[in-house]
Amino acid sequence: MGQIIKGKPVADKLTENVIKEVEMLKNEGMYPKLKIIRVGENAEDLAYEKGALNRMNKCGIDCQVIQLPKEINQEDFLCQIKKANDDPDCHGILVFRPLPHQIDEEVVKHFINPKKDIDCFSQLNVAKVVDGDCTGFPPATPSAVMEILKYYQVDVAGKHAVVIGRSMVVGKPVSMLLLNENATVTICHSKTKGLKEICKQGDILIAAVGRAKMVDINYLKEGAVVIDVGINVDDQGNLCGDVDFDSCLSKVSMITPVPQGVGAVTTSVLAKHVVKACKKLSTNGH
Amino acid sequence: MGQIIKGKPVADKLTENVIKEVEMLKNEGMYPKLKIIRVGENAEDLAYEKGALNRMNKCGIDCQVIQLPKEINQEDFLCQIKKANDDPDCHGILVFRPLPHQIDEEVVKHFINPKKDIDCFSQLNVAKVVDGDCTGFPPATPSAVMEILKYYQVDVAGKHAVVIGRSMVVGKPVSMLLLNENATVTICHSKTKGLKEICKQGDILIAAVGRAKMVDINYLKEGAVVIDVGINVDDQGNLCGDVDFDSCLSKVSMITPVPQGVGAVTTSVLAKHVVKACKKLSTNGH
Repeated sequence: MGQIIKGKPVADKLTENVIKEVEMLKNEGMYPKLKIIRVGENAEDLAYEKGALNRMNKCGIDCQVIQLPKEINQEDFLCQIKKANDDPDCHGILVFRPLPHQIDEEVVKHFINPKKDIDCFSQLNVAKVVDGDCTGFPPATPSAVMEILKYYQVDVAGKHAVVIGRSMVVGKPVSMLLLNENATVTICHSKTKGLKEICKQGDILIAAVGRAKMVDINYLKEGAVVIDVGINVDDQGNLCGDVDFDSCLSKVSMITPVPQGVGAVTTSVLAKHVVKACKKLSTNGH
Repeated sequence: MGQIIKGKPVADKLTENVIKEVEMLKNEGMYPKLKIIRVGENAEDLAYEKGALNRMNKCGIDCQVIQLPKEINQEDFLCQIKKANDDPDCHGILVFRPLPHQIDEEVVKHFINPKKDIDCFSQLNVAKVVDGDCTGFPPATPSAVMEILKYYQVDVAGKHAVVIGRSMVVGKPVSMLLLNENATVTICHSKTKGLKEICKQGDILIAAVGRAKMVDINYLKEGAVVIDVGINVDDQGNLCGDVDFDSCLSKVSMITPVPQGVGAVTTSVLAKHVVKACKKLSTNGH
């Protein structure tokens, strides 16, 4: 029977550290602040925003939501980004994606200030993740995966990590983060042949496919560490991950649940990133 | 007995296309030009420069070498980059690396104009490789690998590609290029455990380790396509790759030799990139 590794203790530990750092910053007259830029009222965005607001509040980080109409045009949207870019009191910018079709994400990508880009929207931060340059900001979810592995003392070096999924928000960056920590990394996706056999080699298996309970016991190496990044709804309308948790639990050494797994850690990562950005901006300027 | 797949026909084909494109550009009054920026007189740099000059000459691409003293300081070096960045007659910039220690590559990386950065020095081009955004310039060697696979009609999609090496100039970018073409990709390196067994799964094996003849027949799947990116000198003082060519030839379906393999294609890739840069700069400005 594997160990269920929840996100909460990881988030608590991260939060505890952030609280201390925020206090120190405030003692030096620096007040870390996050701006959330949300277009429209997508339910998922609102849920995530609520979580982020709570976390920032707990951490003592000021948080302002810029709420924009669904039909906002690109110029007006960029104007809001520019304001946040230039605002000396703002240290982190979080933009909910996907943006509505009339806004070209390619343009935003190049426009957002990379020093405030705490969720890896900008190309510069993507490149830093690949380069193993820790001055950047990897996206929140892959960072959360790494924080969980670290917290539960999973030594990644020399291990074979298999990642299912190759998105720019999870699959590719988490592969690079694992590689930078000396894992051997296999990246699988919808065109992969013999997926089960490949997954079965993973000492660590990261599921980021977006298909409810796709990964069952037949995908697992005995004693694997399984990190489930998926958030789906099953036939009964319940939240579930990409991994068939009940079927897998007996074979893994550790497994994250969904909910209460990776998703519970992302807002703490964001808080950590805001503090990091605040420190750097205070030293090097905006 | 495997097929020996040489670089020359690939380079010839690429060159042929570039020549046509250069003629068309010249008919429209555009004269593609490459600036090579070399610090000191490193023998490898000089050899590569000679090859690049020959290739550009063959393609009808103007090529200027900016030769700088070994002890040049960072400010003066950046001044040269700035000149090339701003020169409306220059479309491609090639900087030989590594640069001497007094010049901070991190700074240069952010300074070089990404639109002229035909060998993927800048972060923007690194990010585009990861993103599968074909408006950028991947580094010459990984691009050469992909051109070889394409020329010899190796269908990459759904194949398992194993890459040995995780450098920013070969291992990581070639992994991303293969992934973008729908290969399943495993990235191995010096900390990988069970390297032989992992390599043995590769339908395609890319060796970019930098160790003479390290990959022997025991690393190969029957019928694998082997691309050898290494350039080393063996005990007898002869040029050789990372792959023990003679031992492997019987087991592979295709294999690139060293010399006359990947290395023969890189300058043609650079020429192709200069033309691409010239076209884009003419349309969108510097």
